Amino acid sequence: MSEIIHCGRLSKADVGKTVELKGWVQRRRDLGGVLFIDLRDRTGIVQIVFNPDFSGDALAIADRARSEFVLAVKGKVVEREAETRNPNLATGEVEVRITEIEVLNAAKTPPFPIEDGIEVDESLRLKYRYLDLRRPEMQRTLLLRSKAAKIFRDFLDGEQFVEVETPILTKSTPEGARDYLVPSRVHPEEFFALPQSPQIFKQLLMVGGIERYYQIARCFRDEDLRADRQPEFTQVDIETSFLDQDQLLEMMERLTARLFKETVGADIPTPFQRITYADAIDKYGSDKPDLRFGLEIEDITDIVKDSDAKVFASVAASGGVVRALNAKGCATWSRKELDDLQPFAARYGGKGLAWITVKDGEWRGPIVKFLKPEEIQALTERLGVEDGDLLTFSADKKKVVADVLGNLRLKVGRQLGLIDDSAFKFAWVVDFPLLGWDEDAKRYVAEHHPFTRPMDEDLHLFETDPGAIRAQAYDLVLNGYEVGGGSMRIYKRDVQEQMFQALGFSMEEAHEKFGFLLDAFDYGTPPHGGIAFGFDRLVMLLTGRTNLRETIAFPKTASATDLLSDAPSRVDLAQLQQLHIRTVPKLGSKPAQPQGGQPAEAAAGAPAQG
Amino acid sequence: MSEIIHCGRLSKADVGKTVELKGWVQRRRDLGGVLFIDLRDRTGIVQIVFNPDFSGDALAIADRARSEFVLAVKGKVVEREAETRNPNLATGEVEVRITEIEVLNAAKTPPFPIEDGIEVDESLRLKYRYLDLRRPEMQRTLLLRSKAAKIFRDFLDGEQFVEVETPILTKSTPEGARDYLVPSRVHPEEFFALPQSPQIFKQLLMVGGIERYYQIARCFRDEDLRADRQPEFTQVDIETSFLDQDQLLEMMERLTARLFKETVGADIPTPFQRITYADAIDKYGSDKPDLRFGLEIEDITDIVKDSDAKVFASVAASGGVVRALNAKGCATWSRKELDDLQPFAARYGGKGLAWITVKDGEWRGPIVKFLKPEEIQALTERLGVEDGDLLTFSADKKKVVADVLGNLRLKVGRQLGLIDDSAFKFAWVVDFPLLGWDEDAKRYVAEHHPFTRPMDEDLHLFETDPGAIRAQAYDLVLNGYEVGGGSMRIYKRDVQEQMFQALGFSMEEAHEKFGFLLDAFDYGTPPHGGIAFGFDRLVMLLTGRTNLRETIAFPKTASATDLLSDAPSRVDLAQLQQLHIRTVPKLGSKPAQPQGGQPAEAAAGAPAQG
Repeated sequence: MSEIIHCGRLSKADVGKTVELKGWVQRRRDLGGVLFIDLRDRTGIVQIVFNPDFSGDALAIADRARSEFVLAVKGKVVEREAETRNPNLATGEVEVRITEIEVLNAAKTPPFPIEDGIEVDESLRLKYRYLDLRRPEMQRTLLLRSKAAKIFRDFLDGEQFVEVETPILTKSTPEGARDYLVPSRVHPEEFFALPQSPQIFKQLLMVGGIERYYQIARCFRDEDLRADRQPEFTQVDIETSFLDQDQLLEMMERLTARLFKETVGADIPTPFQRITYADAIDKYGSDKPDLRFGLEIEDITDIVKDSDAKVFASVAASGGVVRALNAKGCATWSRKELDDLQPFAARYGGKGLAWITVKDGEWRGPIVKFLKPEEIQALTERLGVEDGDLLTFSADKKKVVADVLGNLRLKVGRQLGLIDDSAFKFAWVVDFPLLGWDEDAKRYVAEHHPFTRPMDEDLHLFETDPGAIRAQAYDLVLNGYEVGGGSMRIYKRDVQEQMFQALGFSMEEAHEKFGFLLDAFDYGTPPHGGIAFGFDRLVMLLTGRTNLRETIAFPKTASATDLLSDAPSRVDLAQLQQLHIRTVPKLGSKPAQPQGGQPAEAAAGAPAQG
Repeated sequence: MSEIIHCGRLSKADVGKTVELKGWVQRRRDLGGVLFIDLRDRTGIVQIVFNPDFSGDALAIADRARSEFVLAVKGKVVEREAETRNPNLATGEVEVRITEIEVLNAAKTPPFPIEDGIEVDESLRLKYRYLDLRRPEMQRTLLLRSKAAKIFRDFLDGEQFVEVETPILTKSTPEGARDYLVPSRVHPEEFFALPQSPQIFKQLLMVGGIERYYQIARCFRDEDLRADRQPEFTQVDIETSFLDQDQLLEMMERLTARLFKETVGADIPTPFQRITYADAIDKYGSDKPDLRFGLEIEDITDIVKDSDAKVFASVAASGGVVRALNAKGCATWSRKELDDLQPFAARYGGKGLAWITVKDGEWRGPIVKFLKPEEIQALTERLGVEDGDLLTFSADKKKVVADVLGNLRLKVGRQLGLIDDSAFKFAWVVDFPLLGWDEDAKRYVAEHHPFTRPMDEDLHLFETDPGAIRAQAYDLVLNGYEVGGGSMRIYKRDVQEQMFQALGFSMEEAHEKFGFLLDAFDYGTPPHGGIAFGFDRLVMLLTGRTNLRETIAFPKTASATDLLSDAPSRVDLAQLQQLHIRTVPKLGSKPAQPQGGQPAEAAAGAPAQG
């Protein structure tokens, strides 16, 4: 007998067999001299029985076992009597009558129960992660994560992708997020950087004729953390030569559909909806819209631009927009709920949020008195106003309006129960702007990264209106999360130089930062493009979790520490001397401020840059 | 048509088809107005033809193309006429008559030819790695590497292993090789370390009930480099619970056999030979013997211990050994070759190497006159002496004799052509000593690592003779290389404490270094053990290379630099300030010396510690 991983797989089909089991004591009960132990391994739990009638010396040995003892046992599988069957247990129709036992190891009482749904401080779970990982929900998550990786690999292998490992010790390119640095012992005063993504290397692999590359790659960003950020994270990194955007997205749709089918059994229809960046912002107030429900934002600037409601008219006159969200059926909101709309708007940068309730045919609210009948008529039509609706209005710069109403839309959608938690709604957000204007730096910055290819038909805008250039860039959005993103890349040197000019880089700067990539353009670079999936986040969504830490075996806390191994930690002075560095004690107790004006938010929205 | 990756796959079966091809110009020839271009993609090369008769404008466009231009072409596959077929080309029976062309990108003349077997300085290849990677032998290597990873994964998946990612930012454990350190921005004066292996995490995963874990893991050692070392390297890292050593090795043999069958078509017989560490040292002078040939070392201490050859007798008397290697048929060596044996021995720490030639029944050599007839008789029998043999003798401490004769054995084996370059000879070296005596530190050190399980029957030796304890440790050896290694691990706290005592650690020290692992022992740790394969080295042997750099897409040089991206490099002062460190300029030009007595050689022999 060497099938040892199968506590949870025993069934009536095994009745009569003698089996060996190895696992942990989940719980034990002594019923009148007969000992029942739930024995747990990776596959689940089975009840084993020690009885003086058949267990002999094994009973006394088993009697010493407590929770989380490790046992090796041997016995015969029998069918349970009808009244003792446990329908809550996969193996509940059988039990194993034990004749031999060995206590492989003892255990102290664990600091929290080894079961699902425990209410325990997360820091305790992380300190004892090796016990936390024994809990079935953590086991399921890690098994699903492993399976998801396998599905990615199998699909990509089938499409003739080559898995290539790119360096972890690489060069610092201080654009984007903060780098983690690694001092060099051999080269004093020089540093490696851990990669924020394999971006440049995967492009060089295309120059190198690999044609189709993938890697499930560890990436590093030294940013302040949130629930959905980790200092090291994993992306499924993909790059192809010779495919155009449509060909790549079609392939990635098949990949995504297969992933969701084979992990959680979900049927994902393809092709995915495609929505332009402009439409996503206009209709949903977000470039990662949750499309599980409608509740679209409507522009009403044209209707109210000459309104007596001065707040609307003045914003319209100064180039802003006025937009409305019809919160269907929310006219019943309390005064407090309505008042709370103001601080809600403020949280997203809005100066206010006008509202109108529609009850029994009557429009009420602070601004109603300023609306002309024809404006009310036009709004009724545009917003599909019905009795019981709550109309909300934001007037401001386009970005502010989008943030305010986009977040209000999510709040209302949740409140009204419009969101189907079991649905997976995918969309590609496409036609991103190539460049965004950085008001602080007074220059354009790359919205995706400096290697993103502009649309051919927009190339002439480099001369006249760089901000209007659309990029051949795309994000994959699922249920309001960005789960992937990428672009076609620039592959012609003259276009790359135009791009660097638009970013305000001198050719010297560009060459210092990306010289080896520019050099590569001179030697027959093929058209190429790719994508990266945020693997941790995909696993989070597949397992219905809301915290990335739940998807990672050994995660770090929000302050970037590993509570299990106590990393980071102090090191020997001799180690630092070898590395030609010394530490600079922090003055006082005030945390050191980030310096140098790094655009810390550049990567904020992106789980993956590809 | 979207089959675009297939230049090298066209054959007579495609004749008559219209195909689209995208690839690089390998070479071009103009024969009387007809242009022939060898077009190359990842799959190989095909000849495309431009002729005024069918190519129209495409001919003029193609005429501008030079080596490494990127072309997209469309045309009809035709059979070549008999006399123009190229038997050296897989596609040599066909050519493609081009009707449409687009130049996707131009190229400057590359710094070296894009073909196999070039004689180019390696540093130039590394600087232009993106061109080097286009060469067929590099493409083949990366494709095989990718395939090998897939085979590992598929096999392990089939055996129900779970792929788990372990942290790259982890805790420094200054035992073994030097750590790469990463300063923490959030925690001033604290550092992460890059892992030398996932050893502790994989053991914690076993404590966590994962039962079967694997990962193709990046590992980091800040050591001085050799041809077969890289600062970052890849190991296939494996750990299992509940399997004993025999079960694990049997499974790994099946894995290895499948890997070699599916990559290079080699039939590897299983089970693999097992040889004890003691026998390997005695017979082959090495713990990673090349078993493709015999030529075993023989101990003759008993024969010569009372010999008039004082060098033999005195060594024997002082506890050393006298051993001999019979270099069959080497009696013909020149005087210079025989003289060269002395510096050869010195290179491996030997004081000398005695020799005897046997020609026409006559024994000649400096020591012959000291040998009694009965000694000659005994040597003749022990060494199987025949006419034409060269007998070599080393007398010294056992380790020195092993190094000298082990290396001489390899030299003679190569010189005599005894080594079949196409053979793959595997063996497990087992029964390693648990502890080795460190003469400098005057204490025992772990031969494998401090978590290696002693043999049960040797446990009592902790009290009396720790150096004699054998470990449940094993190395996988192939053709004289160590390609994997591992051990069963200690899983009982009392044994681990005995081990730490034997290593001279106080419990405080042990707890500071490995406290979280010791804590884990208290909560039901299952018996477990594992292995790690040196993936880079396996790929090297599978592809017949002799340099690890050839197996890695973007390797580092012997001075740990990346010539392509120019890493490591200087960084902005602001970056260092954020990390609370500053650099210490090197004084003078003398390279900084490693400090603190790190046991730099601890990891020297091991491509992988598992």
